[in-house]
Order: sequence, then structure tokens, then C-alpha cells
Amino acid sequence: MIPLNIFAYIIPGTDAHLSEYIAPRDARVAFMTGFTGSAGTAVVTRTKAAMWTDSRYWVQAERQMDCNWELEKDVSISSIAEWLIAEVPPGGKIGFDPFLFSLKTQESYMINLESSNRTMASIPLNLVDEVWKERPPIPTYQPEPLPNRVIKRTWQMKVEHIRNQMRDNPYEPTALLLSALDETAWLFNLRGNDIPYNPFFYSYTLLTMDEIWLFIHETRMTDLLKTYLNTSCNGPLCVKLKDYNSVQDELKTFVAQPLVKVWIGTEYTNYALYEVITPQDKLMTSSYSPVLTTKAVKDDTEQRILRDAHVRDAVAVIQLLMWLEKAVPEGKETEMTAAAYVDKCRSKQKDNRGPSFETISASGPNAALAHYSPTADTTRKLTVDEMYLVDSGGQYLDGTTDITRTVHWGTPTAMQKEAFTRVLMGNIEISRTIFPSGTRGANMEMLGRRALWEVGLNYGHGTGHGVGNYFGVHEWPVGFQTNNIPFREGMFTSIEPGYYKENDFGIRIEDVAVIVPIITKYGHNYLTFDTVSLVPYDRKLIDTSLLSSVQLQWLDKYYETIRKVMGPELDKQGLSEEKKWMLLHTEPFAETESSASLSSSSLTLIALAIALLHII
Amino acid sequence: MIPLNIFAYIIPGTDAHLSEYIAPRDARVAFMTGFTGSAGTAVVTRTKAAMWTDSRYWVQAERQMDCNWELEKDVSISSIAEWLIAEVPPGGKIGFDPFLFSLKTQESYMINLESSNRTMASIPLNLVDEVWKERPPIPTYQPEPLPNRVIKRTWQMKVEHIRNQMRDNPYEPTALLLSALDETAWLFNLRGNDIPYNPFFYSYTLLTMDEIWLFIHETRMTDLLKTYLNTSCNGPLCVKLKDYNSVQDELKTFVAQPLVKVWIGTEYTNYALYEVITPQDKLMTSSYSPVLTTKAVKDDTEQRILRDAHVRDAVAVIQLLMWLEKAVPEGKETEMTAAAYVDKCRSKQKDNRGPSFETISASGPNAALAHYSPTADTTRKLTVDEMYLVDSGGQYLDGTTDITRTVHWGTPTAMQKEAFTRVLMGNIEISRTIFPSGTRGANMEMLGRRALWEVGLNYGHGTGHGVGNYFGVHEWPVGFQTNNIPFREGMFTSIEPGYYKENDFGIRIEDVAVIVPIITKYGHNYLTFDTVSLVPYDRKLIDTSLLSSVQLQWLDKYYETIRKVMGPELDKQGLSEEKKWMLLHTEPFAETESSASLSSSSLTLIALAIALLHII
Repeated sequence: MIPLNIFAYIIPGTDAHLSEYIAPRDARVAFMTGFTGSAGTAVVTRTKAAMWTDSRYWVQAERQMDCNWELEKDVSISSIAEWLIAEVPPGGKIGFDPFLFSLKTQESYMINLESSNRTMASIPLNLVDEVWKERPPIPTYQPEPLPNRVIKRTWQMKVEHIRNQMRDNPYEPTALLLSALDETAWLFNLRGNDIPYNPFFYSYTLLTMDEIWLFIHETRMTDLLKTYLNTSCNGPLCVKLKDYNSVQDELKTFVAQPLVKVWIGTEYTNYALYEVITPQDKLMTSSYSPVLTTKAVKDDTEQRILRDAHVRDAVAVIQLLMWLEKAVPEGKETEMTAAAYVDKCRSKQKDNRGPSFETISASGPNAALAHYSPTADTTRKLTVDEMYLVDSGGQYLDGTTDITRTVHWGTPTAMQKEAFTRVLMGNIEISRTIFPSGTRGANMEMLGRRALWEVGLNYGHGTGHGVGNYFGVHEWPVGFQTNNIPFREGMFTSIEPGYYKENDFGIRIEDVAVIVPIITKYGHNYLTFDTVSLVPYDRKLIDTSLLSSVQLQWLDKYYETIRKVMGPELDKQGLSEEKKWMLLHTEPFAETESSASLSSSSLTLIALAIALLHII
Repeated sequence: MIPLNIFAYIIPGTDAHLSEYIAPRDARVAFMTGFTGSAGTAVVTRTKAAMWTDSRYWVQAERQMDCNWELEKDVSISSIAEWLIAEVPPGGKIGFDPFLFSLKTQESYMINLESSNRTMASIPLNLVDEVWKERPPIPTYQPEPLPNRVIKRTWQMKVEHIRNQMRDNPYEPTALLLSALDETAWLFNLRGNDIPYNPFFYSYTLLTMDEIWLFIHETRMTDLLKTYLNTSCNGPLCVKLKDYNSVQDELKTFVAQPLVKVWIGTEYTNYALYEVITPQDKLMTSSYSPVLTTKAVKDDTEQRILRDAHVRDAVAVIQLLMWLEKAVPEGKETEMTAAAYVDKCRSKQKDNRGPSFETISASGPNAALAHYSPTADTTRKLTVDEMYLVDSGGQYLDGTTDITRTVHWGTPTAMQKEAFTRVLMGNIEISRTIFPSGTRGANMEMLGRRALWEVGLNYGHGTGHGVGNYFGVHEWPVGFQTNNIPFREGMFTSIEPGYYKENDFGIRIEDVAVIVPIITKYGHNYLTFDTVSLVPYDRKLIDTSLLSSVQLQWLDKYYETIRKVMGPELDKQGLSEEKKWMLLHTEPFAETESSASLSSSSLTLIALAIALLHII
């Protein structure tokens, strides 16, 4: 830092593609600090070192970092900037690797620092990599084309479709730069394995009207890939392979030509590529590239196979829940064995490609940490005295799944039952809502919280995220946050309200739903959710007296769907015990309910009638 | 334009304070185009002239503008920019008056134009004023201090309070510039009359730790004002009066000093003042100034008197509705006479200072235009065959009111009844919601639409806005839009869902509510709404079978409050007929309702019991 004349160096927890999950070779925060959680930003000054992470990870960070590191708890960029202003002298420079900053992140630091006379300095060499002698190499796994049975649109069709969107754009872009790893993987119908749980491979794409440049590591330019991508020809549907590491130089050369205008998505383009696109009139921006917004809406094949994947995935979760019901009272199972069991069940399902993230298997107080995964040190024995939360998902060739169930094998407390029921009410209220096409998730996510708010409860995480077809389990830009795009027919999102009582228990109910059209009495273009996760909720935890009749009807209809779809699937897989379990757990509620509502006033009248008969 | 070398000139519909309502001397769009609606942007090029306004005003604009003007319908800045790109040659400059652009608006034009090689040019002289020979002068009305009975905090206390916020700010501003008219009026407890319906006066304030500069027109520097503002002394609580027109020069001189940093709110500071604050490290920004965010939360006196104003205001609206019930069947009343009637009723209430906006009095199809006000040309006769919507409000020394009721004096259609009931359900669902302090209105406003969405209906306007204490009827930054600030205890907002059927009828139900704390079973710091508008809804239009029992309970509780508060007030004013009318229209629903819910199953049992008795 001294020869570079910088006073602080920022180390973000992402990669050059602004990925949420990263490969070991990009785990620079973990290498520097020892902290292995999935979200953290480190800053090193000439005399100090600090790391910022959110409340999920405070305990873990304190445990893993040595005393050279201070833990900072407010992860907003304005808070990091405030810390920097206190530590860096006026006029001082703060270094960063432009490949690890999105244009938006860099801008946000700038805005927070600009009035205090500290500046951001883009440093070409990554200072962490300079000292990281044993940095893991590029994985050897080769990207592979998806089989035809899981695709409707070939990569050539997708290229044409995106080019049409470029042509239709009034700002007349001549090129599109794709930086997010799922953008290139989606465009070419290719999947890799560079990042654990994420079938991606390091890549960039530059798409113009007559050329396609794919930037990948040279070791990956196999004959199979060259044939698949038509690399030996020269037309507009022939791909030119270029070295992954040449992207910045190639882009600079490209931009130097007259009459070019490069379209980038500001959320996923790193600052290193952004800064070579000058002057400004060669640049065109939107929050997300047209690839991301197109990918967000699944075509009919993608919808069908993603639903299919959820059917097989439900088999694995039903197997887990049934097994736990029997095994837990025997006292030998732990969070770890339960996680291993569901992973194994999934692995037996057709087209499974492993879990889609590290299974969250959490009992009692561990479940109060919303994103806890068990380790040998922390694993708890499962007992009938604690609630248990399992959040897991699978990668399948046809789809990515993500589901959470919370159960109790003994007698829940009144508060646990109330909290669970109110979380379920949140899930139902979102799921049954009818809304105009184009409504934003952020504008309806409070429906997931409202029943909790009524009694002063809440949860501290988001309410849902997109999922993909054999892609990331958190697939942007679909979801319920303010920077997600508006909901359209054919999008898939998780719906996952929860409630966490510190040092006691945690509840989350998570389903994936697809957005479908619905016919309304007066209007057109209205949508609603159709839940594609097909696993019953723990009956014991539902207080039906809190549910409205509309909510009960929704629940019964959902259970009817589970029976209709999962019955034949469990039959097909020869799982008769699981089928019996599923039928038992999806008995309709409404019958018992409607007779109960008769009770109060009517029972008095029945008593009166009987009394009259007795008088006679 | 030719000597200035500009190809287009943008004329916005606002003033130098970015006011929503403007004085006649700022009605430049109306002077240029002939269009008198409250929202419009005009652009003049060397060969063309166009005006942008939203759907509320398309008919009116076509009627008022001559054929030299083209009407454009997409009012987004990106759409105006697209039009400019088509009309202005590459390299061409687009002129604007920097006093009439907020920093945000200017930035938004820049971003939309930057990639197309057209630039924005700040022109010191307003080109419209150059040709506007009969531009109205500054009004002669003098700003006056509020009487002590309507204030808790003197202007000196407010100054100290704001200075404390400046001191506490980590970015260490040395000065605060206030540009919005209600900022200065609030700070000094002064009210004027420069803008119709808005008790403001042209002004800016520059507040430092030891000085207070108030910029007003010299004609307004009366002895009374000088005494009130301690202008003859020199301490930190002595005001220096400066000429309104010197603000840009004075600010420039101030900023030229070393170690100054000026805090501005970006939403209400015009570009002319922003551009003199250089270099960037002399500037500090937030969306809203601390005066606006402080003003948003009413102190206990303000809360009490604003509630009081709504009680007297409800008397006027009850008088109108009662009178219309009798008068309309006689066939002599029109939209115009009804509007005049309610304005007259208000004028008789204590401390009334006229209406808070032009009364919207709209019958049948006219009500389908959400912001229609009747004119001699358009006024309709009121009949028992049409629905009628009246949206009106008053300025009182103690508060500003805004209320909408929709009624039918004959037999509504099933569809009218359903739509009205669903609008009412939206109003109730927002009003009864319990939410954590700090929740944004935008995140709950869909509750106002949800019952409509269920049957494919919707409305095209916002769901509510702040109101003030003898201030603007749309008081920012409180409300349900994305750029409003989070809800806190003590804020007042309107709640106003609606439904509009083109060429047929319009429904809006608008109440003002104050945000109050509520005790919940488990949590702290939860809030809900307490409705302060106290006028019953038209019973005939409510289909109680659509309401949930919780909604009916809310309605009955609201009606109970109307009886409890309005009964004594009507007695006090000697309005016995009005009291009878009020009591009739606030009969509880639930009794009839709960006996109705007994009916189905229980009546069978009663019949059975009776049959049994007969057998005997």
C-alpha cells in the first residue's frame, strides 16, 4: 500500500462477476480474516484492519477472526465510508480492485466520500492475490451444453432474441456486454461447476449485431465446445472464443472504434470494464441486462420442467420428514445426520446434481440464527422438546429448488403455535393475492409480515427471491426487494416469511411459486401465485382458529394439489409408506373447521331442542 | 433562442421553490400554451411547440391549446428527453431556467440526454418572462406570525432544534439552505398568501450556527416583522433580512469563504442555487432538509389542533351531505352550487381561512376524471340517477383538511355498490393495519387496492399524502409513494383509494388519519392509524356481505367515534337537524350483521325446535 500511496484498501466478498456465491479462489475475505461466512467486506489501513458483516454472522466472525481484526456491524456503504473518513487523513487515497466493485458500489463509495476530500483509487493489481501464495487454481471441470430435452430455445435463438431487443432499443446500442456468470451460461445453454452449488463457469460475453465474443479460460476451449458454438465459421451466429483474462483489453480496443455504444447492466458489471467504456456517449446503461430480464420469465418448457423438478424434490423432503418423525424420538439423530439424510434422498432423484446450497438444518436456538448450517462443533441432537427448521434445495438438470419446513415432534408451546400459524398466514396471504401484471414484489411483501405485525412480531430477512432452471438458488432480478423487477407471468419466486426468537427457536416456511394469469370478474391482465413446492406443513403447529375461512380454503386447495400430484409420483417411485404419510398430513382442514364454527350458537339451539324433547 | 444558440427551451410548471401549487405570476405554462391544468411541462423548439401532461388533463389540454401546440401524453422525463433527441440536432443545446429545475430534475434530464450528445444549458434569464408583458406582480399581502394559541414551539426554539440536528450530523454542515416555501414558513411560524389556497410567501432561509438570513421581498420588511424576528440585534437568534432576489449572489459570496459546508435537500433546492455551491466538498445533500423531516412529525399541540380543525371541518361536510339529500331530488342543484355550498359552510367555521384547494364536485361521468373541478361549461345537474363525488378541504388557522365522500341519492347499480364497498375495504384495510415504526407507506399502499384487484379493478392515482397545520394540502414528504419518508408516530396522512369507470362514474373515499402507537401482544414500537376525518360513508353503497367481520368491527368503531366526537360539536353549534342526520347515518352495522350470520344454520334449528313443539 505504501508504494501505491494508498491509506486504506477495500476487500469485498465477491468476484469479478459480482456473484453472490463465490469459488474458493475468490474467497479473499476468508483468506485475509479467517471469517468464512458468505457476506463480508474487509478494509485494511496502514495500522488497522476491520471487517463488516451482518447480524447473521456476528457470533461466527468473533469466533473466527483473531484480535488484529475489529468487527463492524453496520454493513451499509455509508457506515464503511464513515469509518474510512475517521481512519484516512484528508486528501488520502483509498484503493480498490475495480474488478471486484460493481459500478453502483463504486459510485456509492464515491458519493459518501466526495464531500470529505478522500478519493477512491482503482488499483490494477489485486493486493490480496499478491500475498496469497496458495490461491486455488481455476477448476478443471469443463462447461457442458444442456441436453435438448431441457431446452426449448437453442443458443442461436436466444442470441437472435437478444439482438432484436438491442435493435428495438431507442438508444441504439451496438453491443451488449454480459458480466454476470448466469448471463453467459443462459445465453449459450451451457453449465459449468466453478462455484460450489452453482453450475457456472468464469466467462464474459460481448454480443454485437454480427459477432459473438465469448471470454473463457483457454483450457476450456475444447473441441466439443468449439463445435457446439460454431467457432470455425465467420457469420453472425459463429462464436469467437477469446481468453478470459483479455476482456478488459479487448473491450478497450472495441470501444476505441467509431460509432459503437455498449449496453451494460449496472448491477452486475464490474468497475474495471465500466471504466474503459469512454467517452460517455459510447455507454448505455440499465439496471439489468436484457438477458437477465428475459431469463426472469421462463418459457413454457422451462416452466414445465421446473415444476417437474419440484415434484421429485418434494419426494426427498417428504422422505426426510417421515424418517425424522420415527427416528428423532429414538434420540440418535442430529442436525448433521438430518442434513446428510435429505442430501442423500435428493441425490437419488432423477437428474439431481447435488444440493443447491449448504443445507440449513437447525434445532432449537440454532434455528434462531436465520442462516445457520450445522458443523461438528455446533450440531445439536434432535429431540421432541425442540422445534426443528430445515431449509434445503437441489440442483437438477431441469431446475433448482429451495424449500423450508419447520416442525415439532413433541408438544409446541402456545407461543410457538401462534408464531408458526402467523408465519403460515403470511405465506398464504402472499400466495393467494391477485394483482395486476407489473406489480412489484416490494409493494406486496408486507402481506407476508402483516399477521405477525398484528401481535408485534416480525422477521429480519427478505420475503423471497427468484429461482432458476439449473442455475443459482437466488436468481436475480426476481423477488420481493425494492431493486427487483416487476412481477410478470412465468416468473418463479420463493415466498418465505419467518419468525426467530433469540436463544429459543426459529420458524420459516418457504415455498417456490410460479406467477400465473387469473381471470377476474371485471379486469384483464391480473396474476396470482401457484405454489410448486409440494410438501405439507406441520399440522400440530397450525392453530386453525387464527385462520380466516379464505385462508383455510386456500390451505385445503393446496393440500388437494399435493395429493393429486404427489400421490402418483410416490406410487411411481414405489414409496407406499411415504404416500400414506403424505395423505395423513394433507387431510382437509375445512370440514372439521366448518362444523366447529357451527358450535357456539347452534349447539345452544341443539341443546334447546333436546331439552324440549326431554320435556315432552 | 437563436442568439443564445439553443435549439429547445424547457418550461416547467413550477416556481423557484419547486412548489406544487403556484402563484399566477409563475403560471408560465398557462401563459405560453393556454392550458390551465395544475401539471404540465412545455417545450419550445425553433419550429415546434409541445406540452406534456398526464391523463387527468388530456381532454382539457386539447380544448385549451391552439393547433400550434402538440399534446404529449407520457410525462416521464425519459419520454420528454426522447422527444428532444428527435427534435434537437446532435451537439445542440437545450436551454432551461435553473431556478425552475430541481437538482434532481436537471440530473434526470442530463442522464437521459448524456449518451446522445445533446447538452443542457442553464440560461440566467427566463425567456418566458422576457415576452410576458403583463406578468402579475408580487402580491401585496404581508406575511403574519401565527397566534400563540396554535404553536408550542417559538421560531427561536425551532431554530435551536434544527441547529442541534446540524451539529449532530457526522458530515458537519456549517449552514442549511431552505428553499421550499413551507420550510421557511414553518421555521418562523409565519404564514402568507402568495399562492392561491396555500398560505406561503416567497422566501429562502440560510441558517448557520450563529446567523439567520431570511430572503424576502423588500416590500415585506415591515416593522412588525422586524420586531417579531429580532432584526435589530446581532446574536445567533437575530434574523438578518436580505432581498429575495439577492439569494444567488449572497449564497455565492457565502460559499466562497473557507470551511463552509452547505446542507441542501435535493428534492426542493433549485439548480440555480445548487450550481453556485462549489467545489463539491462545500456541499452536503439529503433528499429532504431536516426542516421537512422535523415538520412531518407533529408535536402534541399540532396534533391536538389538527384534530380539532377536522371536527369543525366535518360539520361543514355533514351540512353539505344533509342538504344535498333534500335538495337534489328537487332538481335545482348542480356541481357548481354544491361546491359553493360546502365552501360557504366551511367559511362559517371558526378560524377558517378559505378552502385548501379548488373543490372537486363531480357527478356521474365527470367524477370519472379523478381531479375534475366544475366550470360553467361542464357543470352537471345533480340527480338521483347519478353518483356524486365531492373532494374538498379547508384552511384553518389550526390545520388543513382534505376529505372525499361519494354518494348516491337513488338506487345504485350492483356494480357501483360492489366497487364502492371494495374501495371502502381498501380504506379500512390500510386504516386498521398495525406496523412497525419506520415502515414505508409505499410498502403498505397495496392494501388500499387489494379488494379491488380481487375482481380486476384498480385506480390510477396515489393512495395518500401528508397534510399540514395551516399549510399545503399535499404536505411532503409524508405519504404512500416510494419517495416518501418512513411512517412515524405523529404524522398525518390522507388515505384515499378510489375507482373510476370512464364515462360513467367515479368513487373516492378519502380520510385523514394520524399515526398513533399501539400496544401489541409481544412487540414494542408498533403503530397504527387513527382516522381524524369524521363524516359517515353512504350506507346505501355498502354491501356488508363483502366485508369481513374484522372490517365491520372497524367500521362500527369508527362510527362510534363519529357519534362521540361530532355529537357534542353539533350540539355546541346548535345544529340539531345535522345531529339527527349524523346519528341516523352512523347506526352500527354489526348487530344486523351478527343476527344475519346466525340465520342460515341456526334458523333451520329454530324451525326444527318449533316443529318439535308442534309435534307435541
